[in-house]
Amino acid sequence: SEGVVDRIAAIVGRDHVSRSDLDRRAYARDQWPLELIRSVAGGEVRHPPDVVAWPGSAEEVAALVRLANQEGFAVVPFGGGSGVCGAVVPVHGGLSLDLKRLNRVLHVDSVSHLVTAQTGILGPALEEELERHGLTLGHFPSSINSSTLGGWLAARSAGQLSTRYGKIEDMVRAIDVVLPTGELVSTQPAPRRATGPDFVQLFVGSEGTLGVMTQATLLCWPVPQKRLFLSWELDSLEAGLRVIRRILQAGLRPAVVRLYDELDTLLAGRGGKHLKPQEHGSQPGGLEGELTPGEAPAGPSRSAPGVALDELAGAPWRLAELFQEAARRGGRALLRNAAGLVSRATEHWPGPCLLILVFEGESGVSEAEVEAAERLLRGEEGRSRGEGPAKRWWDERYAVSFKQSGIFTKGLFCDTMEVSAPWSCIEKLYQGVRRAIGRHAVVLAHFSHAYPDGTSIYFTFLADAGDDPEAAEELYRKIWREGLDACVAAGGAISHHHGIGLSKADYMVREHGALMNTFRGVKAVMDPRNILNPGKLGL
Amino acid sequence: SEGVVDRIAAIVGRDHVSRSDLDRRAYARDQWPLELIRSVAGGEVRHPPDVVAWPGSAEEVAALVRLANQEGFAVVPFGGGSGVCGAVVPVHGGLSLDLKRLNRVLHVDSVSHLVTAQTGILGPALEEELERHGLTLGHFPSSINSSTLGGWLAARSAGQLSTRYGKIEDMVRAIDVVLPTGELVSTQPAPRRATGPDFVQLFVGSEGTLGVMTQATLLCWPVPQKRLFLSWELDSLEAGLRVIRRILQAGLRPAVVRLYDELDTLLAGRGGKHLKPQEHGSQPGGLEGELTPGEAPAGPSRSAPGVALDELAGAPWRLAELFQEAARRGGRALLRNAAGLVSRATEHWPGPCLLILVFEGESGVSEAEVEAAERLLRGEEGRSRGEGPAKRWWDERYAVSFKQSGIFTKGLFCDTMEVSAPWSCIEKLYQGVRRAIGRHAVVLAHFSHAYPDGTSIYFTFLADAGDDPEAAEELYRKIWREGLDACVAAGGAISHHHGIGLSKADYMVREHGALMNTFRGVKAVMDPRNILNPGKLGL
Repeated sequence: SEGVVDRIAAIVGRDHVSRSDLDRRAYARDQWPLELIRSVAGGEVRHPPDVVAWPGSAEEVAALVRLANQEGFAVVPFGGGSGVCGAVVPVHGGLSLDLKRLNRVLHVDSVSHLVTAQTGILGPALEEELERHGLTLGHFPSSINSSTLGGWLAARSAGQLSTRYGKIEDMVRAIDVVLPTGELVSTQPAPRRATGPDFVQLFVGSEGTLGVMTQATLLCWPVPQKRLFLSWELDSLEAGLRVIRRILQAGLRPAVVRLYDELDTLLAGRGGKHLKPQEHGSQPGGLEGELTPGEAPAGPSRSAPGVALDELAGAPWRLAELFQEAARRGGRALLRNAAGLVSRATEHWPGPCLLILVFEGESGVSEAEVEAAERLLRGEEGRSRGEGPAKRWWDERYAVSFKQSGIFTKGLFCDTMEVSAPWSCIEKLYQGVRRAIGRHAVVLAHFSHAYPDGTSIYFTFLADAGDDPEAAEELYRKIWREGLDACVAAGGAISHHHGIGLSKADYMVREHGALMNTFRGVKAVMDPRNILNPGKLGL
Repeated sequence: SEGVVDRIAAIVGRDHVSRSDLDRRAYARDQWPLELIRSVAGGEVRHPPDVVAWPGSAEEVAALVRLANQEGFAVVPFGGGSGVCGAVVPVHGGLSLDLKRLNRVLHVDSVSHLVTAQTGILGPALEEELERHGLTLGHFPSSINSSTLGGWLAARSAGQLSTRYGKIEDMVRAIDVVLPTGELVSTQPAPRRATGPDFVQLFVGSEGTLGVMTQATLLCWPVPQKRLFLSWELDSLEAGLRVIRRILQAGLRPAVVRLYDELDTLLAGRGGKHLKPQEHGSQPGGLEGELTPGEAPAGPSRSAPGVALDELAGAPWRLAELFQEAARRGGRALLRNAAGLVSRATEHWPGPCLLILVFEGESGVSEAEVEAAERLLRGEEGRSRGEGPAKRWWDERYAVSFKQSGIFTKGLFCDTMEVSAPWSCIEKLYQGVRRAIGRHAVVLAHFSHAYPDGTSIYFTFLADAGDDPEAAEELYRKIWREGLDACVAAGGAISHHHGIGLSKADYMVREHGALMNTFRGVKAVMDPRNILNPGKLGL
């Protein structure tokens, strides 16, 4: 009601609250592909918030949450909006709480290598401030330009260098958090403690359902003295996985480990042509011709169209090119059949797999780690391809999701499913999910974020949206359903770093079993009026 | 009542339940020094359990917890009984649940380097089984011979190699846990996931208040190819702390980092004489004469009396020798004043500090790490003392708390306080706690379990128990109160790896602030009849 909006305005100031249609539409979704499918199809915005507010302090956040408790409206914390699971969709309306005004670095403790920052800060601003102290967080998600510290913490984000530096939950040492009752509480940093359960890890990953984190203290590292790039070709995916496992289990710490499956490697090879047209001495033609300069976004890290080996959208973009080529040559029927065809054709693909490794850190030690890794690579009969592919990936590592919407407007849809498991389950997980999704979409995968005991698998899939938006949505849901069924059956965790949101909410019981009842009990006792991001995480 | 005991017997079998006085006394306490003070003074056993049971399976544990819910009696999980905070004292009577029959290694996944074991297994049995697979957990607490996996998890244990391998909470990947309602739930291992809060980290550290863990899956490592020992002398504690910080912040990974403060270094030097009497070509005399062979326990790792540089009791033992010497020469008055005298004398001790480092892991890499570390050590004008002191510490690293009771029977008491903080607080924390305790006891400290962002400090103190047991208890409590006050004031966490139990329960609110209300709410919703280890952790 208007009275509530006035009370919100009294807290944050008239300039920092909005009920405009434009704002409500902007806060109705994130980058969840299902919403993009609907959006491209011209569907109505289904879950706009009633109001959007931009608080300027933790105290204002606390006051807003207290007000929500009194009035009984939902509060949905909002960071960069770059999530891909619908975690910020206000399914019960209420207030979208944009935290981006809480964007200050509060303290850099250059003795302890700890940074304390407000959670609304965007990735580049945080890194810029750290760089002035010769430090880095070591957290570089593909979305870094459009994601916030708070979003990282809420969803258990992983950066591209996580194999060395850990995920965000490994870096965080303390948080300030507004509880669902509106009470602002602080935890104190210590490297480790033995003082009961780890309460920070209760809020981290809770996707705004148990509290609104307003600041956090995280471990940083010196900007590395050295960075060493390796690219190796392995004869098979199995050999590639084995060597990654051996590298990690030997205690070596590459910052980057990326193994591309056969199809992804093949496409990466094609992508290489685009990457440096001047090297090949020819203007791009054929498929490359689809990529007009207008489609390439501005900025130094986004300059190359048709990028090879990037994280999120590069591969589907190349797949989109394949699809378009197929469409040009064989018409819609071929396009529709492409998924099954490609999946079957690549089922026992004999081709090599590309492995990229980046080591960084202390001079002398990194070199010794590279030597040890190369011994293991040679043991698997790998062939070095020099620094080239690894460096090219590095240069283009943020060339990502900005391409996604282009795919959707071309009558296709794509998404990514990132799962994780112990090594002993990985091949079953890979084959199971790949087959499940491959029945409906072209699917490729790379393996990144490796650990001594397992790895994540990053599946990218692309499907024909067809002409019926409802059928497209049904196909999308079916792909996820069957993909996640296969994941659970193989012993995988249903998300490694994208989170749950709405998209995987129905799978929380299968992920956690009876502990979901415990989680629901904890939610009920902490948030008795169920105001904080209701309807998410399967709660 | 007898009926309840019959029902317990029906679950675990008549042979696995006891109401004997002997058993009830044995389960009335752990190694909490306050209970030792009382025990030595001939005090009554204050909190025996009503009954002790030894279940043989997770299902039996679950059945016992369900029974406790029906009948409303307390259940206190019991592992090795080696805790030092009173976490297993049955303050509300009820059932002591000894888990040591759950002692099997269930599975070694030698592909993923994961071991799944029941929580009642003792440390050496677990390591022995892993060794058969060429693996190690890398978890070696001083108490390893008398502590269980479940105890480690319940109290967030740290091993002597934690600087490389992490604490137990860093190793654990999945648990089976009986909830307070008696429901047995399982979590599945994955190296990392983004599927809500980390529920495993809710049970880890909960000291039996939120569930009874019955099995766990943990990350292992290959038995290291190499082990390199370094001992360096630094001119001051400050220089020693600075070099540890720089080593860790450079990303180097020593398995062991131990810096002894000036007094501890001095005593370590004395200890060296005992260690290898044959080297010195003389039989021990004087103080050494106090150590009769009968006091040296059996076993290969326990063979040297008057050990140098050990973890827990070596230093107080050497202090005890000093005290005895003082008593012989100057009588009781001097003894009583020794605490203040030694504390004041060592306040600005000019002596050097000893730093021990052990590196292990992949051949080639460890050497490079040692080289990098030595560059930093030379930068602080450290002087190498070769492998000797580090190797001697290694050989004697388990020569520990078995000596403790001897101290108590000599009219003294000792204890250890292990706290942690970011580097920027460490000197303030060290000086603050040292002064606070030093008013009442002789206190020395070493720094171990180091991190890039901070370290733990391990204080050992020894005081005169006097002739009045009640006064001794009051003195003991006062030392802890003033020590923890100083810790909190300096920004330290009140425990790094011993846990809370009863001894620090009153400090949980100061440690966690308003989050203690959240914790109490979580406890109430998970354990509505408050049957699981009631009265602990400040709940």
